[in-house]
Amino acid sequence: MISVFGHLNPDTDAVTAALVYAHLLSRTGTPATAYRLGDLNLETAYVLREVGLDAPELLSSLAAGSPVALVDHNESAQSLPNLIDLDVRYVVDHHKLGDLTTSQPALLRFEPLGCTATLLLKLHREAGLSIEPVDARLMLSAVLSDTLHFRSPTTTDADRDAAAFLAPIAGIDDVAGYAMQMFAAKSNLGDIAADKLLKMDYKVFPFGTQTWGLGVVETTNPAYVFGRQSELLSAMQAEKAAAGLGGILLSVVDILNETNRTLIVSEHEAEVVRAAFGAGTQDNVADLGHLISRKKQIVPALEAHFAD
Amino acid sequence: MISVFGHLNPDTDAVTAALVYAHLLSRTGTPATAYRLGDLNLETAYVLREVGLDAPELLSSLAAGSPVALVDHNESAQSLPNLIDLDVRYVVDHHKLGDLTTSQPALLRFEPLGCTATLLLKLHREAGLSIEPVDARLMLSAVLSDTLHFRSPTTTDADRDAAAFLAPIAGIDDVAGYAMQMFAAKSNLGDIAADKLLKMDYKVFPFGTQTWGLGVVETTNPAYVFGRQSELLSAMQAEKAAAGLGGILLSVVDILNETNRTLIVSEHEAEVVRAAFGAGTQDNVADLGHLISRKKQIVPALEAHFAD
Repeated sequence: MISVFGHLNPDTDAVTAALVYAHLLSRTGTPATAYRLGDLNLETAYVLREVGLDAPELLSSLAAGSPVALVDHNESAQSLPNLIDLDVRYVVDHHKLGDLTTSQPALLRFEPLGCTATLLLKLHREAGLSIEPVDARLMLSAVLSDTLHFRSPTTTDADRDAAAFLAPIAGIDDVAGYAMQMFAAKSNLGDIAADKLLKMDYKVFPFGTQTWGLGVVETTNPAYVFGRQSELLSAMQAEKAAAGLGGILLSVVDILNETNRTLIVSEHEAEVVRAAFGAGTQDNVADLGHLISRKKQIVPALEAHFAD
Repeated sequence: MISVFGHLNPDTDAVTAALVYAHLLSRTGTPATAYRLGDLNLETAYVLREVGLDAPELLSSLAAGSPVALVDHNESAQSLPNLIDLDVRYVVDHHKLGDLTTSQPALLRFEPLGCTATLLLKLHREAGLSIEPVDARLMLSAVLSDTLHFRSPTTTDADRDAAAFLAPIAGIDDVAGYAMQMFAAKSNLGDIAADKLLKMDYKVFPFGTQTWGLGVVETTNPAYVFGRQSELLSAMQAEKAAAGLGGILLSVVDILNETNRTLIVSEHEAEVVRAAFGAGTQDNVADLGHLISRKKQIVPALEAHFAD
């Protein structure tokens, strides 16, 4: 049995890709089970509730040598802690290739697309498989989530085509309305603890000799997040110290206006974002303008900065 | 313009894959040029002569940031020396994933098949492209070469199917006869210098803290190679010293009888092959029985040995 899972602090693409790919593998003769590596975010919980699916089981460890399929990630810092000891048989991803290695030839599918789901749709077509309505709903939700309903600069024509193909199978007539409901669910943060809010969409990256933590809150209601600014800065300081990070950022992305105002905890982060992005900083907030994609805009600029 | 190339000390799969993939990329709107990273071996020279193609140009360096497509390899030790500084946009390979990283999301296709050409045929089908006769001949030759006409344990059903599909397009009725001509050409080593013979199909691998050089001579005439045993052992000693290797092996694979007798230069290599393969050793020769695949049998056993 192959265990299929997306990255830590899973988002809608990570969770749905695990479900859809496990189903695809099983349908093509390779029994597979989907897992998640963390709590569902509010958007993903909404999507699964609408589809009528339970969340996949939480996974925190696997025995060395277990066969696995990675979706929506490949770097060890974003995976199970003992990834290096697992038998990686399959990877379906749309991120840059990090420190992954395999002990045997494996099946790897990476494409520079907005979303893992777009690649999963392609795999169904290549295998000559019909798309079942539940899978269509999961993949459509992931496309809308990862591309912020086509607002993100990571969006490709293939993502738009995938959504147009999937919507009628998913039985969703008003795609824009459905996307808004997803984003509203994601933004309905209530009294979530500040440390949970920080970690909701959070990834760790090595830059030169430093390790940085990069959180993102994509929301239709940025005022709510900035209303909790001092709590969040404390949570960021605590995480930075506990994890021995070189820096930590929390980008608050206004989905509807496509802007990014990023929380920074010290002058060190402020200097780096000024140098890497030419961003203005004031108090504990950096204005990153329309740089709303961590993958395509934030991480490459920081990598280039630390490579100099 | 994307530069497309296979591994150092190129074999038939590496050279033909560069030609076929450069053509495929160009036909699908991405201008690309094929290169080779070393001299043609005698089999590949025979294949290109039969097809009526010139060898792709020799490439020894590229400027940092140049966009490249890797075929039939992914590890830095088997590629251009400054691979880390190149912009890897595409990889088509059937080996395990080594130390490759990409700076941006890229298109990666890895499948556990006997041959890169089998995957290239799949890419043509996915793109809805007809197979041109020259490409069919190149891909068929690569399948026969890498699988030793389906004798290698790396052979998959997909490789057999690919060859059956390609043969009529390539205009080759007698596939077995054509394979024998390829292998005879490869075995017709004449007065090739011993150091060239060692390096004809030679790859370097990190095992634990050591680096080993693993050469293979696939031949229908092993007696010829063993007739030059003392010269070859001297060339191996010299290479081991010059490259600071922890060990060096030269496997003489009898294609027709599917056996492997491997030259070893010191008691260190003898101990390792006895422990890793349970092989008998006598003087400077280890009997590796029917272990004829470096990729699937030799390298994994050495990795497991040095991991302990």
